[in-house]
Amino acid sequence: MSESTAVSSHTEMDVEKFKEPSSTYHMLGGDDPHSYAQNSEYQKQLVVSAEEWICKLIDKHLDIEKPAFDPYMTFRIADFGCSIGPNTFFAIENIIKAVENKYKYNIKNPRIPEYHVFFNDHVDNDFNTLFRNIPTTRKYFPAGVPGSFHGRLFPNTTLHFAHCSTALHWLSRIPKEVIEVNSIAFNKGRIHYGGAAKEVKDAYSTQYRKDIDSFLSARAQELVLEGLMVLVILCFPDGVPPSESSIGIGFDIFGSCLEDMARTGKITEEQVDSFNLPFYYPSPSELKALIEENGCFTLERIERLISPMKIEKPNLKIVTKGCVSHLRAVIGGLVKEHFGNEIVEELFQLHMKKLGENPMMFDEKYRKETNYFLFLKQKSHL
Amino acid sequence: MSESTAVSSHTEMDVEKFKEPSSTYHMLGGDDPHSYAQNSEYQKQLVVSAEEWICKLIDKHLDIEKPAFDPYMTFRIADFGCSIGPNTFFAIENIIKAVENKYKYNIKNPRIPEYHVFFNDHVDNDFNTLFRNIPTTRKYFPAGVPGSFHGRLFPNTTLHFAHCSTALHWLSRIPKEVIEVNSIAFNKGRIHYGGAAKEVKDAYSTQYRKDIDSFLSARAQELVLEGLMVLVILCFPDGVPPSESSIGIGFDIFGSCLEDMARTGKITEEQVDSFNLPFYYPSPSELKALIEENGCFTLERIERLISPMKIEKPNLKIVTKGCVSHLRAVIGGLVKEHFGNEIVEELFQLHMKKLGENPMMFDEKYRKETNYFLFLKQKSHL
Repeated sequence: MSESTAVSSHTEMDVEKFKEPSSTYHMLGGDDPHSYAQNSEYQKQLVVSAEEWICKLIDKHLDIEKPAFDPYMTFRIADFGCSIGPNTFFAIENIIKAVENKYKYNIKNPRIPEYHVFFNDHVDNDFNTLFRNIPTTRKYFPAGVPGSFHGRLFPNTTLHFAHCSTALHWLSRIPKEVIEVNSIAFNKGRIHYGGAAKEVKDAYSTQYRKDIDSFLSARAQELVLEGLMVLVILCFPDGVPPSESSIGIGFDIFGSCLEDMARTGKITEEQVDSFNLPFYYPSPSELKALIEENGCFTLERIERLISPMKIEKPNLKIVTKGCVSHLRAVIGGLVKEHFGNEIVEELFQLHMKKLGENPMMFDEKYRKETNYFLFLKQKSHL
Repeated sequence: MSESTAVSSHTEMDVEKFKEPSSTYHMLGGDDPHSYAQNSEYQKQLVVSAEEWICKLIDKHLDIEKPAFDPYMTFRIADFGCSIGPNTFFAIENIIKAVENKYKYNIKNPRIPEYHVFFNDHVDNDFNTLFRNIPTTRKYFPAGVPGSFHGRLFPNTTLHFAHCSTALHWLSRIPKEVIEVNSIAFNKGRIHYGGAAKEVKDAYSTQYRKDIDSFLSARAQELVLEGLMVLVILCFPDGVPPSESSIGIGFDIFGSCLEDMARTGKITEEQVDSFNLPFYYPSPSELKALIEENGCFTLERIERLISPMKIEKPNLKIVTKGCVSHLRAVIGGLVKEHFGNEIVEELFQLHMKKLGENPMMFDEKYRKETNYFLFLKQKSHL
């Protein structure tokens, strides 16, 4: 791997990667320098670091003796929040490799099932690009599934394996209290709950609780009994306020860029006040409690994933550029939708400048957010 | 319906509607005046006239007592060569209505299954537009399936119902002999087999035989035992040479436009000689023989469909315009791919002018091609 790739990917971690908050938002499509396809190396590293866990845990928990996993039937896998590739393809290949090993080495009946793979993302995701990118060497029949993963996307008892990596921090909507001027949770002058009043954080966490519950309940319906699910979710350690993490610092700087532009009259103050990022990062214990409360799955394993691509001496210029490119691929659509296309270029240029002047978010000591790998087994159709 | 719609749709029949010949060709996407979405009224009329047959024959042939049609399982439907809508949605709704009636009035167990619906077309089809067009009032879970229907697209025993309307005349490729200068079947100066030497027609029909066989064999694998399939296919009556039909006449005029442009040096003669339309129209008896030869299906019914929207006194100008718009939506991509984008506008303008000067293709007496409705039942996995 070239140095520049390594460095830019490193910083991408600090800003985080996001997906579809509502049916109008999506990763930037196509293949140009601002596209998600060109700015998702960080997510790929997460897929790689989850690989070993997936193999081990499929081997342990996939019970191919159960009727639902009969090798004469099709084995159905879905990736939720797949974006346009290529990471979704790596994840699917890895899952299939592990599933195949399990079937192949079954002494009683070493037969491998056929695989039907479903790539899900919001209806405005660039499925045309996704479909063109599907590897020709695949061992599965692919299909695309448009729609929000906070609702049902498949008939009952369809899937054997569900996967969702670095997508569940997207809320289905901005909590409405944080953009209502007269609400106690009105998030004036900020774009996220990091550093905001307790009421703002509470509004975000209430929305997250609803969203996670909808997601888990929908997947429980769609999975066969004892169907398996892997989630990769960015968490804040318990007790760490987001404002003291690199993500929080990054969002604060981004918010200050918007305020600068409001001061010069390029956008209005009201526009800034009504713009909030639809992302929430739970703590691992919060996540465990939510899964338990939902009741449809047993959490078979939760593991901290190694931070992708730590580097010793970051080149600040490259790091900053990578960070801004990544954020733009992820929230460029949100910004355009809310403020209009004409400010996008200037805003991200300003963001790059300010990050360069305030590099504290790249400091190791603020790298407090961590990705967690969760392995779940469906236990009921609540 | 306004007069202009009726008239333009009427003529669209004469030129016919086409789909994906290879992975590089597809209907024109989007919603602009040249798009397929704006130029597919004729196909819609066919869907409507097939509706009654579908209802009757599903009622007669769908055996919901068979394990494969258990109402506790998902009922899976696929439309092959769906393009971008809206016709595919009408067809699916109609199928679901008929299937639902069958399950609903089952005295022993009046339970309705869930529906999983798969929209298939070539990978370069505009799936983004298709997905945005899916009706919000649907009663099914939708998915898109990219790929050629001449090959396998689903795991074994996945589908309960397959549908393919006005798409099977697309060959998987141009028979190579017709564009090889030294071949006995070289189709010099023509763009189709209508009016060409016997060897050209033979090359086309040989390719069609292979393609239909691949299609049927793939669908037989994908359908459950006794799964059902509806095909709507444009045929020439036995013994009618295509050159004496409105389609053949239309293609001849289109070919003469290309020759005119070659004479003025806008394209080369070699380009014209190497351009052939990848469409084949069997006779009903040829079709029956091919289905028998393939052996995977019983042909439960074959019916001539009423010609859509016959009108008494066509307004020639409107008729011509509708005809050219339709042809452009269908083969615009082929033309652009072969000759380059710069000639497209001029070519179709010239075509409009020449059709206006030679209106014989709009004469009822040349309307010899007819759509046939076929209802098949899967009988084996050959």
